[in-house]
Amino acid sequence: MSKRSLTQRAIIFQSHGDPSQVLSAKTLPDLPPPPPSSLSVRFALSPINPSDINVIQGIYPSQPHVRTSKEVELDEYYIPGNEGLGIVEEVGSSGSEFSEGDWVIMKRSQAGTWASAAILDPKDVIRIPRKPNPSKLTEAHAATLTVNPPTAWGMLTKFIELKEGDWVVQNGANSAVGQAVIQIAKRRGLQTLNFVRNRPNFAELKEQLSSIGATQVFTYDDLSDKATKQKIKEVTAGKEIRLGLNCVGGKETSLMATLLGKDAHLVSYGAMSKQPLSLPTSLFIFKNLTSHGYWQSRWYQDCSPQERDAMFNDILDMIEDGSVRSPLKWRIKTDGFRLVISPRTRNLDID
Amino acid sequence: MSKRSLTQRAIIFQSHGDPSQVLSAKTLPDLPPPPPSSLSVRFALSPINPSDINVIQGIYPSQPHVRTSKEVELDEYYIPGNEGLGIVEEVGSSGSEFSEGDWVIMKRSQAGTWASAAILDPKDVIRIPRKPNPSKLTEAHAATLTVNPPTAWGMLTKFIELKEGDWVVQNGANSAVGQAVIQIAKRRGLQTLNFVRNRPNFAELKEQLSSIGATQVFTYDDLSDKATKQKIKEVTAGKEIRLGLNCVGGKETSLMATLLGKDAHLVSYGAMSKQPLSLPTSLFIFKNLTSHGYWQSRWYQDCSPQERDAMFNDILDMIEDGSVRSPLKWRIKTDGFRLVISPRTRNLDID
Repeated sequence: MSKRSLTQRAIIFQSHGDPSQVLSAKTLPDLPPPPPSSLSVRFALSPINPSDINVIQGIYPSQPHVRTSKEVELDEYYIPGNEGLGIVEEVGSSGSEFSEGDWVIMKRSQAGTWASAAILDPKDVIRIPRKPNPSKLTEAHAATLTVNPPTAWGMLTKFIELKEGDWVVQNGANSAVGQAVIQIAKRRGLQTLNFVRNRPNFAELKEQLSSIGATQVFTYDDLSDKATKQKIKEVTAGKEIRLGLNCVGGKETSLMATLLGKDAHLVSYGAMSKQPLSLPTSLFIFKNLTSHGYWQSRWYQDCSPQERDAMFNDILDMIEDGSVRSPLKWRIKTDGFRLVISPRTRNLDID
Repeated sequence: MSKRSLTQRAIIFQSHGDPSQVLSAKTLPDLPPPPPSSLSVRFALSPINPSDINVIQGIYPSQPHVRTSKEVELDEYYIPGNEGLGIVEEVGSSGSEFSEGDWVIMKRSQAGTWASAAILDPKDVIRIPRKPNPSKLTEAHAATLTVNPPTAWGMLTKFIELKEGDWVVQNGANSAVGQAVIQIAKRRGLQTLNFVRNRPNFAELKEQLSSIGATQVFTYDDLSDKATKQKIKEVTAGKEIRLGLNCVGGKETSLMATLLGKDAHLVSYGAMSKQPLSLPTSLFIFKNLTSHGYWQSRWYQDCSPQERDAMFNDILDMIEDGSVRSPLKWRIKTDGFRLVISPRTRNLDID
């Protein structure tokens, strides 16, 4: 087995703050060949999720571990990046279940994927099985497999047993999770009421979301519109909606919650409006609403390896049969923040 | 068996509105002797709960049935009153499990207890067993047994398994439910953090609530006070609080929710502030908070007769062993609203 060093460039921060201020790209010392029971991996693609921004801002409960590197005169620094597709470059001399060229994703959160390469413990990664060609599993799929599709899968699975034909309502429907919800729901025969912000190209977005399986697409403005409520009654044919998914919070979510029927569950996985979740108490008391949160990191901590594998296999099956496609936009724009990790052209690239 | 008619006076309303405007006391036609498979009962005590006011205002989901009475020239009217202690006056000729003098409470909601007497279906009432003298079960206990103690019992039982020494936090701690929570919690070896509105006689109220078993009593103002948060940390010795009970809503509840630990349940059974329940989404996502509603009427609909009997027996045991006393104030004052149903001196009496 060859013993190769890997050059390493990474996005780092040394103190929390505005990503445009505190992030920098650094060339770090070459990674040595992997120790006996380790793996070295190259990161092929490392997505940016909204939570990565919160990690850098210092407002997220999970944080990457502190690193030190005397050789580059950095006292203490952090490599952000929770999710990514690693390709196994070399397996340490004591061997493992992994082989060179395997695709792996991160089992441990905040592994520091915004880097060109890393040495990892085999226990901290999961191999992604690739079917013989032609596989529909793209690098973009694999790189975004840890957080968003499992979040969608978990929220559609863990709170209420939905039957074919049942309705799910969600906001932020064009988020990566929202798109996964649409596709997984469609594959299960569920129907989705999808809400997004109003925008000049709403018709185009509606068309895109419909093309991946959205049953209905509305804007938040429509939530205050009686005609929309009437239309929703008609399309749902009076069938009560028992699952609502929320990544927005604020007034839009209060209004969306009134669409829910009796014994419904509202599951929040984000708060993009930065407004609290404000709901009439009567929905809880008289309509028996239950409000939950969903955090994929907690699920990974709590689930058994069997549950986790079953979830990934289910999602991988949906990717292979074409039910779950790459996110329409898997690059997330943030204001005044531009990063390109060279030299990997397909790596992190925000503008 | 005698065949007696009963005179009947009742509080009635004919249209929804402000109770002081729409309620009136009427003498209704005498009740005939009970039909073969019925009971006639006299109401000994008929409490007023906040929900009764909401029923009259027309903003409550349950409503009493419409009645008509040509003899007193009333087209359509309603008798409010959900809860009450009935004493069996006469059993219809086909007999039943009931006997003259039995104490009964209402199984059916909105039975119309704000009356001196009624003819009832035996299926709609529950007999309250009275232990041989001396029984601690007073008429006030029995009359208030349907709603408030079961609400406290249900909220302490149905959402999370609490162990001796665990903490429960609640607002509206001096409400009838709040007092029942304090007493049932105490009897189970649980500790309670109780919040009430600030008031001139706070020290007296604190003393009263402590005397029935409250571990700690604070005002809502204390929720914004760092010293109080520190004190709570000390008294709970860092033990996470996993059950919060809310009948207030609004800002006070948002603040109270931040006292809850991981995997906690917030259960709402009222909204006395008339403000929505507004909570940071992060509590749901990262602390795994679940927010529920509790409605005793739904519980009665959903539970089995065995569950219901077990609950009543548990509460009756606690009354008999002195753990649960009559509410400190079982008369509820409402502004500009004074009612006395004559001639029963111990009946409804609000000032």
